[in-house]
Amino acid sequence: MDVSKRIGRQTVALPSKPGILSWASVAGQKEKEGPYGSKFDIIIPDELNGEQSFEAAERAMLEQAVKLSAQKAGRSTQELQMLLSGDLLNQIISAGFAARNLGIPFYGLYGACSTMSESLSLGGMLADGGFADTLACATCSHFCTAERQYRAPLELGNQRTPTAQWTVTGAGAVLVCGGPAAKGAQAVLTHTTCGRVIDLGITDQNNMGAAMAPAAADTIAVHLRDMGRSFDDYDLVATGDLGHLGKDLLIELLKKKGISVQEKKLFDCGCEIFDARQDTHAGGSGCGCAASMLCAHLLPEVSSGRLKRILFMATGALLSPTTTMQGESVPGVAHAVVIEHVEG
Amino acid sequence: MDVSKRIGRQTVALPSKPGILSWASVAGQKEKEGPYGSKFDIIIPDELNGEQSFEAAERAMLEQAVKLSAQKAGRSTQELQMLLSGDLLNQIISAGFAARNLGIPFYGLYGACSTMSESLSLGGMLADGGFADTLACATCSHFCTAERQYRAPLELGNQRTPTAQWTVTGAGAVLVCGGPAAKGAQAVLTHTTCGRVIDLGITDQNNMGAAMAPAAADTIAVHLRDMGRSFDDYDLVATGDLGHLGKDLLIELLKKKGISVQEKKLFDCGCEIFDARQDTHAGGSGCGCAASMLCAHLLPEVSSGRLKRILFMATGALLSPTTTMQGESVPGVAHAVVIEHVEG
Repeated sequence: MDVSKRIGRQTVALPSKPGILSWASVAGQKEKEGPYGSKFDIIIPDELNGEQSFEAAERAMLEQAVKLSAQKAGRSTQELQMLLSGDLLNQIISAGFAARNLGIPFYGLYGACSTMSESLSLGGMLADGGFADTLACATCSHFCTAERQYRAPLELGNQRTPTAQWTVTGAGAVLVCGGPAAKGAQAVLTHTTCGRVIDLGITDQNNMGAAMAPAAADTIAVHLRDMGRSFDDYDLVATGDLGHLGKDLLIELLKKKGISVQEKKLFDCGCEIFDARQDTHAGGSGCGCAASMLCAHLLPEVSSGRLKRILFMATGALLSPTTTMQGESVPGVAHAVVIEHVEG
Repeated sequence: MDVSKRIGRQTVALPSKPGILSWASVAGQKEKEGPYGSKFDIIIPDELNGEQSFEAAERAMLEQAVKLSAQKAGRSTQELQMLLSGDLLNQIISAGFAARNLGIPFYGLYGACSTMSESLSLGGMLADGGFADTLACATCSHFCTAERQYRAPLELGNQRTPTAQWTVTGAGAVLVCGGPAAKGAQAVLTHTTCGRVIDLGITDQNNMGAAMAPAAADTIAVHLRDMGRSFDDYDLVATGDLGHLGKDLLIELLKKKGISVQEKKLFDCGCEIFDARQDTHAGGSGCGCAASMLCAHLLPEVSSGRLKRILFMATGALLSPTTTMQGESVPGVAHAVVIEHVEG
C-alpha cells in the first residue's frame, strides 16, 4: 500500500492533485430562465428532449453531458475508463441505461442529491491512486421523473408546500484525470471528506432542506477540523440543494458547533439556480442542481481564477416513499471535495 | 499520482494486495434449509427479524453482518473508515439506514445484484491507494421486500414462471484493510475488473439469468484477456446469481468468445444456495445471494487454502419496473475481483 493519505477518519488527501480536465452542463427551459440560464452548455428543447418518456429524456441529458465533457477535452468516450454515476430514479435507471449506451465501464452510485460530490470524491481517489487515467463523474435529475416517482403525477396539479423545493431538470459531467492525462487540467482536486449519515428526526418529506442541513453541517465541521482550516481558507463553500430554509438551518447548526461562519461565502446551488419570480418555493433540488451549477458556474469560476479554492459539497436525503410511509425519519448525507485553481 | 496500475481499459492491479481481515454472513430460514445452511454465521428467526416491517428486517440483517465482521476482526465499527454498500430497494434504504445506525462514513452504491463485487472492487482500490486502513463492503437482500417492490404483493400468491429466481434473504459483510491494518489478513485482493453495461435485448423481467449472462461473459472474457490468463489460473470462477438458466447461457457465450471453459470450475451462488427440493425454479438471486455465499462458503475456502485463487464476480440486472413498463430491455453488469489465499 502507498503511504496513508488519511487525515482523520473521514478526510483524505489526494497528493497527486487529480486534474479536472473538462466539464459540461445540460439544463431545461425553466433553468434557462433562471439567473444562470446563459451559462449552461446545452438547453434541452422541452421536457421530452426528443425522447418518448420523461425517464428517457433524463437519460439522454446525462449522455449529452458525458459526451460533451469528453468532446471538450478532445477525448472519445471510448477513452474513458470509468463512469461513476447515479441519479434519483429507482434502480438509477438514468445512469445504468446511459452507461449501456455510452459503453463506459460503470460503477453505479446512489447518494440521492449528493451524487455529484460522491462521484467526485470516489473519482478523485481512484485517479490519485493510479487506477484511472481518465474517468467521468456525472449525474442528472428531471422535474417530471422526480415528481412522478417521489410525489404525485403532475396531472393531479397538487399544491406544493412552502418548504418544498423544485427538482432541477439538468445534468452535469466532469472529466477527472490522473498522471500524465491530467496535463492541461483547468482545476484540481486536493482533498475529500466522506460524509456520515446524519438524522435529526425530520419526518416531513416536503422539507428536504431541513433533513439535509444537519449532514451538511456535520461534513463541513469534520472537514474543517480534520484539515485545521476555517472559512478563511476557502473562497466559497458551495452546497448542493439545501434551499433557502436548509441554508438558514446550516448556518444555525454551524454556529452551534462553534464554527465562525462567513455567510457571504456560503453558496447554495438550490438557492441560486432559480430566482424569486420562478415560484419554486424553497429553491431548486435534485442531483442535477449541484451538477449543472458546478459545471455551468463553479468550475468556470475556479478555472478562471476568480475563485482560488472552493469546498464543493452536494447533499442528499436518503429516504424512499416506502420508508416515509413506514414512519421513518429522513437522514441526510453530504460528501465534500476541495477544488483548487491551477496557475497557468 | 502513483504509477499507473491499469492493465487494459477495465482491469487494474492492486499491487499492495489489500487484506480481507474478516467476514460475516446472515441468512433466512429457507437458506438455512439449503445445502449451505450450516455455514451461515447468523440465521434470522423469521422474516421480520425482530422488526416491524420486512424492510426494517433487511436493514437489520445488514447491520448484523457489518457488526459481526468487525467483531470477528477485533474492531469496533467506529474504527471503520468507510462503508461501501447498497441493496436492491429503491433509494438503497437498507444500506442508507444501516449506515445511519452504524455511524460509519458511507458511500452508497447501486449495482443491483452485482453490489457485493462492486463494493469489493472499489474497496480494494481505495485500500490499495492508501485512502482507508479499514473499510467494510456489504450488501443484503430479502425475499419479501424484493417481491413487494419488483413483482407483486406476496398475499396475491402469484404463480412464478419457470425462469424465475428466488431472492435470497441474506446479507454479507467483508472487512478490507490496507497497510499495516492488513496484518493477519486471511485472504487478499490482487486485481479487479470493472464491468461494462451489456444488453443483448432480453425483455422478460422474469428471466434475469438470461439478462445477466452476457455481462458475466463480457467481464470474464475481458478479465482473462487483460490478465493474459485462462481458467487454468483459477481454482474457481464464482458468479453471483445467474441461476441454472443463466449459468448455461454463460458457458455458451464464453465458448462463442473462444474461451476454453472448464465447467467444473464455474460456481454460481444462485445455483448452489438452494437445492432442487426447495422449489426455487431457476435458483437463488439478490444482492444477498452472492454476499452470503461469499462470506459463508467462498472466503472460508480461500482462507483455509482449499481454494488458492478465485475470481469472484457478482452480476446485476439494471432494470426498474418503470423501464420494463416502458418496453426497455434489461441490461446487465458484472464486476470481478481476484481473491487469493495467504500462506500462513
